[in-house]
Amino acid sequence: MSIQFKFSRLGTDNAPGQEGRQKSAGLEKLLRGEPLKGTPVDFSHGDVDAHEPTPGSYEVFSEGVRSGGKQAYTEYRGNLEIREIVARRLAVFTGAPVEARNGLIITPGTQGALFLAVAATVARGDKVAIVQPDYFANRKLVEFFEGEMMPVQLNYAEASSGTAGLDLGELEAAFCNGAKVFVFSNPNNPTGVVYSNEEIRRIAELATHYGATVVVDQLYSRLRYEGASYTHLRAQDIDANNIVTIMGPSKTESLSGYRLGVAFGSSSIIDRMEKLQAIVSLRAAGYSQAVLRTWFAEPEGWMDNRIRQHQAIRDDLLALFRGIDGVFARTPEAGSYLFPRLPALSVTHADFVKILRLQADVIVTPGTEFSPHSGDGIRLNFSQDHEAALAAVQRIATLVERYRA
Amino acid sequence: MSIQFKFSRLGTDNAPGQEGRQKSAGLEKLLRGEPLKGTPVDFSHGDVDAHEPTPGSYEVFSEGVRSGGKQAYTEYRGNLEIREIVARRLAVFTGAPVEARNGLIITPGTQGALFLAVAATVARGDKVAIVQPDYFANRKLVEFFEGEMMPVQLNYAEASSGTAGLDLGELEAAFCNGAKVFVFSNPNNPTGVVYSNEEIRRIAELATHYGATVVVDQLYSRLRYEGASYTHLRAQDIDANNIVTIMGPSKTESLSGYRLGVAFGSSSIIDRMEKLQAIVSLRAAGYSQAVLRTWFAEPEGWMDNRIRQHQAIRDDLLALFRGIDGVFARTPEAGSYLFPRLPALSVTHADFVKILRLQADVIVTPGTEFSPHSGDGIRLNFSQDHEAALAAVQRIATLVERYRA
Repeated sequence: MSIQFKFSRLGTDNAPGQEGRQKSAGLEKLLRGEPLKGTPVDFSHGDVDAHEPTPGSYEVFSEGVRSGGKQAYTEYRGNLEIREIVARRLAVFTGAPVEARNGLIITPGTQGALFLAVAATVARGDKVAIVQPDYFANRKLVEFFEGEMMPVQLNYAEASSGTAGLDLGELEAAFCNGAKVFVFSNPNNPTGVVYSNEEIRRIAELATHYGATVVVDQLYSRLRYEGASYTHLRAQDIDANNIVTIMGPSKTESLSGYRLGVAFGSSSIIDRMEKLQAIVSLRAAGYSQAVLRTWFAEPEGWMDNRIRQHQAIRDDLLALFRGIDGVFARTPEAGSYLFPRLPALSVTHADFVKILRLQADVIVTPGTEFSPHSGDGIRLNFSQDHEAALAAVQRIATLVERYRA
Repeated sequence: MSIQFKFSRLGTDNAPGQEGRQKSAGLEKLLRGEPLKGTPVDFSHGDVDAHEPTPGSYEVFSEGVRSGGKQAYTEYRGNLEIREIVARRLAVFTGAPVEARNGLIITPGTQGALFLAVAATVARGDKVAIVQPDYFANRKLVEFFEGEMMPVQLNYAEASSGTAGLDLGELEAAFCNGAKVFVFSNPNNPTGVVYSNEEIRRIAELATHYGATVVVDQLYSRLRYEGASYTHLRAQDIDANNIVTIMGPSKTESLSGYRLGVAFGSSSIIDRMEKLQAIVSLRAAGYSQAVLRTWFAEPEGWMDNRIRQHQAIRDDLLALFRGIDGVFARTPEAGSYLFPRLPALSVTHADFVKILRLQADVIVTPGTEFSPHSGDGIRLNFSQDHEAALAAVQRIATLVERYRA
């Protein structure tokens, strides 16, 4: 495989945050009517100005800088004292032990953790079960390491509330046909659905039965809305050597600018991840690691308030989307993503996403980033200024009418 | 290839910074005499407490945090305005144009840049010319991507001052036998030697003739001692599409804790690097990127002073090493590494390195990390407190006598 071919599959043109690099030549002739005025909203990621970083995070960073060399240079897997603090809190949060010395690694963002986890479990030709839709990097990582993808559908639209809708028969068939690894996010990105206790228990059962490794990305598992119940896979009856859980303080806590993530669980997988981190980036930025001291130790009521604010935005945006004829939108139970399906349009949905940017100053991520079957979906990170987000979705509604098939 | 086998070659047990994880069981019976007292010195990396970060770096970081979302979320290749600033300065420093929009990427450390550069140029089975000795990750990266290594010797001990001693005949043979990529550091890590103008010109000539891609790691190219002359490969007659240069403000500037690096040159290679960065770590920590504003804009005289301090330490340590019977040490012309060869000992050199840690509180990196032919070498990063470093090398000298064969 030539290097050009290998990278041709790693497109980032439509990836969140890269819109500034898109070429829009030829699109002008598709534009209808006047541009819609309003505060620009970039739904490709959360707005850390509207929802500010955890109180005290900057101060803890500053102390890290002041403490000098011992914070700048850490083990590749991160500073041991900080790992110990984080391990204790994650054990409480997830309901199963976390071993600080050998069972946890600090990485540059959860993206860093996901990259290392897939690299440490998927060899060339290995079969890997991947959910559709799911976080766009899962697919790309499997492709990059030349694994063979075995898609498992998430029938989130048909599933009842409280159930994600994973096709468990398809998952078993994937294991039965040789899938060695299963990678999924819970809450699911992009739909915001949470796996039910029954689904998680069945995943544990199947992984154990088939001896498969599970990488579960729980990035948004702290931001859960009223009525949502959450089951941690690692606390189920599952071989602890075969599971790695990924989290990070980047999203809910608005700490993305520090690039921090953690992976914890199987010490043999964490060992491999550290070996690779040594040549990928050495370590998460030393001073940034200090910010983890604030994680799971936010001021009383801070997280409740953050959840309440997000739930209010969620509900208002959902009402707007549901007011558009032909739109389907399931209520996200956690996280900050909305994944509505748009009706048929007279332009392709890919072009419509670009038109939204050009005519309405609204950036969303096309559904095809998450599944080949989600061409009519758009993903919005609704961790935004409340009013600006509402106005932006009203502009989307206006443009849907302009371009309706 | 199983995942276990793939990772078995990525050992980090002797890698710099990982000494705290080493098992020293069984070593006690080798110990002779009493422990030597003194300030512990970790020569595996520079001491950023002894040589502090660039003035203003922390303030610029703080401004980055205050500026919020636009600094937290950047293009994967980094904030455009910062890329423009850095591109202008690097063009002046290296003597050849740098294209900010398409020809430069900001990465998590120079390690991040090196990883992406090798990943973006080496496909499975590709032949890659690698210098021996050279930075330990070069070899590991080629192995990780399943390239075929073609070693080229650096006869630094025999070369005259001002010449690195690259075996240019061996390099040509490697290209002639199909090496598509050549990766090397200049100044060389671990020896601190600088390639002569003739060597660099010949590398350019050979790479052009054979259509090979060159990845040159110039991390230490700012820290040059009196009398050293430096030639930038990218300013020579070489196809700009086939060269990527790597630098970063981590070492000389003591900014490692922010994890920043840059790669610049070929836009097609930089494009691939960004695609991969999107799934490896998304981007260099957003707030950290702001620190690049201080790079190549240090206060008047600051760099001269830093060089003077390091040159003084270098000269004192060299004198001590040369006072040990049987030690060979070439004078480093740049950077902060010393790579002396020790005489024959009654224990293996690998054990001696561990004994240094246990009996003298001195950490050095074994030569085998850099070349299979450097078993008698040890690498010291002499960016340390001057007095502590001198005392530590005196302890090394004492232990060499205790264990002399």
